[in-house]
Amino acid sequence: MTDNSEKVSWKPGTLLTPVPAVMVSCGNETTGYNIITIAWTGIINSKPPMTYISVRPERYSYNLIKESGEFVINITTRHLARATDWCGIKSGEHFDKFREMDLTPAPARHVSAPLITESPLNLECKVTEIKKLGSHDMFLAEIVSVNASKAYINSETGKFHIENSDPITYMHGHYYNVGKRIGGFGYTVMKKSTKERLKKQQSDNKKPE
Amino acid sequence: MTDNSEKVSWKPGTLLTPVPAVMVSCGNETTGYNIITIAWTGIINSKPPMTYISVRPERYSYNLIKESGEFVINITTRHLARATDWCGIKSGEHFDKFREMDLTPAPARHVSAPLITESPLNLECKVTEIKKLGSHDMFLAEIVSVNASKAYINSETGKFHIENSDPITYMHGHYYNVGKRIGGFGYTVMKKSTKERLKKQQSDNKKPE
Repeated sequence: MTDNSEKVSWKPGTLLTPVPAVMVSCGNETTGYNIITIAWTGIINSKPPMTYISVRPERYSYNLIKESGEFVINITTRHLARATDWCGIKSGEHFDKFREMDLTPAPARHVSAPLITESPLNLECKVTEIKKLGSHDMFLAEIVSVNASKAYINSETGKFHIENSDPITYMHGHYYNVGKRIGGFGYTVMKKSTKERLKKQQSDNKKPE
Repeated sequence: MTDNSEKVSWKPGTLLTPVPAVMVSCGNETTGYNIITIAWTGIINSKPPMTYISVRPERYSYNLIKESGEFVINITTRHLARATDWCGIKSGEHFDKFREMDLTPAPARHVSAPLITESPLNLECKVTEIKKLGSHDMFLAEIVSVNASKAYINSETGKFHIENSDPITYMHGHYYNVGKRIGGFGYTVMKKSTKERLKKQQSDNKKPE
């Protein structure tokens, strides 16, 4: 095991890792659609389900989100890595990002912002508050609907396997694939009987119908 | 490429993935130390560097953080996966988590909460606001100091390589290793000349002194 006892102290920085790298779609038919890549996002509340995105006011998407009060978080994958990076660099002022990246807008259920069809998972969000923090404004939002690709739903168990979509993460300035599974929440305290029941269920699920 | 055009709409849920899985240390010498595992965290502002953690008020750590206004975010690794999971399940009311998980508290520079020595990266945080959201209270905080393990600092370039610490991430109820690197921020628009310069730098760095 590596010895981490010797530490260097640095001035404050945004070094929390790994973080999500999502494409946020926004706008509507009147204003036009746009996509902005966001790593400053996370879940802030479970009931009701709430998230946030922090956006610099000078970004083109800022006013689209502020004026509509709506956006969609689109989870990204290895296949979408190029679009994820590109949409984080280029401005919607100069490019139609859907067209440039060959992405397809699809209607959401509860917001006017579009889903990105190619993403395996889209979270429709409604802004509840905007907080000025300095370089960024934080949009707190309620997640009002979740759209999951049928391609990753096990037809027998009904479970959603986002891990099969080849998801990506962002760490210290670089994009990474998500690697091997270590264990589920609670795996260190799970009773032997529970483990065996789950194992049996898994093997039952593998049986042909 | 998988076809993600057929979607199932679900009721709202906290499905943003992958997210961090960090150990948050809190308390002080008088109250005693504790550790709580947190996935509801992220960066909310770059200048000044700010983060948040969302905590249920019924958790033992809640009052420790609320009363001191301080906590430390400790980045986790494959080696720390067992402690990460265990500290998310058990309560500090019943266990000395540092002792049980064989972790070593070390003094921080700017807060009274301890660093977890075994973590490769510790972020010292001071709470600026507590927001009640429902199931969770959100602690917004300024990152006031960063402590990085010398073991992952390249002595020639001075760069910090957190990727070599075998970091982990949390996705849809499971812990995962972080996998292979895809590219750096901006890799899709980087000029050929920049790529070549970086490549040369890398090969220069590999030369023996």
